[in-house]
Amino acid sequence: MTQAQNDIPNPAVRRLSLYLRQLELLQKRHVPTVSSSTLASSLSLTDAQVRKDLAYFGQFGRPGVGYEVVSLIQGLKKILGTDRVTHTLVVGMGNLGRALAAYQGFAPKGFQLVALFDMDKSMISKSIDGIKIQPMRQLTQTINRLEIRLAIMAVPADSAQAVADQLVSAGIRGILNFAPLQLRVPADVAVRGLDVAAELEQLSFQANR
Amino acid sequence: MTQAQNDIPNPAVRRLSLYLRQLELLQKRHVPTVSSSTLASSLSLTDAQVRKDLAYFGQFGRPGVGYEVVSLIQGLKKILGTDRVTHTLVVGMGNLGRALAAYQGFAPKGFQLVALFDMDKSMISKSIDGIKIQPMRQLTQTINRLEIRLAIMAVPADSAQAVADQLVSAGIRGILNFAPLQLRVPADVAVRGLDVAAELEQLSFQANR
Repeated sequence: MTQAQNDIPNPAVRRLSLYLRQLELLQKRHVPTVSSSTLASSLSLTDAQVRKDLAYFGQFGRPGVGYEVVSLIQGLKKILGTDRVTHTLVVGMGNLGRALAAYQGFAPKGFQLVALFDMDKSMISKSIDGIKIQPMRQLTQTINRLEIRLAIMAVPADSAQAVADQLVSAGIRGILNFAPLQLRVPADVAVRGLDVAAELEQLSFQANR
Repeated sequence: MTQAQNDIPNPAVRRLSLYLRQLELLQKRHVPTVSSSTLASSLSLTDAQVRKDLAYFGQFGRPGVGYEVVSLIQGLKKILGTDRVTHTLVVGMGNLGRALAAYQGFAPKGFQLVALFDMDKSMISKSIDGIKIQPMRQLTQTINRLEIRLAIMAVPADSAQAVADQLVSAGIRGILNFAPLQLRVPADVAVRGLDVAAELEQLSFQANR
């Protein structure tokens, strides 16, 4: 990554995923090219916004032709690091963790679930979609052996920080956290929080306007 | 809501949920008051940011004393509309929908799940935590009878727009969408998207820096 990529605003990076979803729909429909204005209007954005966002990352598209769908998909995946398979684990085999472990939508996006962990002994050595649930003490060994980079955490709030600490010391590079609290991790580890109840609160605020 | 509240920047509204989570932790520990700087540092924000955010919504806190935890919680809930119970439904009883239906974390935040729906006949009249799964044709009647305002959608992408259309015409005011596509809804209906694979993409980007 170049230094310049550290200066790209977060919302622009966030929109890359939106562009990618839309382009994948176009690819399914065998659409060969798309203009920035068509791409923009399908996502309720402006033409200028789309062109500006994509310009951060390089030269895409040609005047009068637009973007080639397949090559823009490849370009965006390369930027996001999903042009190759990223090994990913799930910790916490409650309702949500089991649902995430069974979800079929990660692999097509480049994230292969290769290991599952739980703290509860009664869950250990059960399987979900052919992947055995392992005890936490096997975390470091498994992360090293399978070269796992990302972790999805679906554990209760009161054990979340301790689990995050274990993941970090075992070498995990990024954590997607479903527990409703902010994790403290070293600066070189990426964290994103997905708090479903907080999303409902935001929706409540918007719906009450 | 006052006109002024329409001008509040989205990130400030977003942070209200963060403040609320942190204040609820303090309440659990029976902490009576908190300064803006303590609240800020626990969330990796600046003192000035916290004071500015809260100032959008009114007069909170007193110089030298800080914010009273219980009354700030009440104030934030009132702003978010979660000081009263909001009836909420879930559509789509696949793995994720069932996990959300069984999740115990919504009710304490003011969102009571009161109805579940699925398109698949084999799921109909099964129950999750005492709530029967209903067919889609009962949507409008149930929404009216139980005064349901919000909907959580955990349906496949290719049926998501059709389901959203049904929810909107049945009177739903806000939709939390887990399907990986942007829904088109009228301007007076709120929508938020939660695309777990897109969150992993963002994490991948950050972890690769």
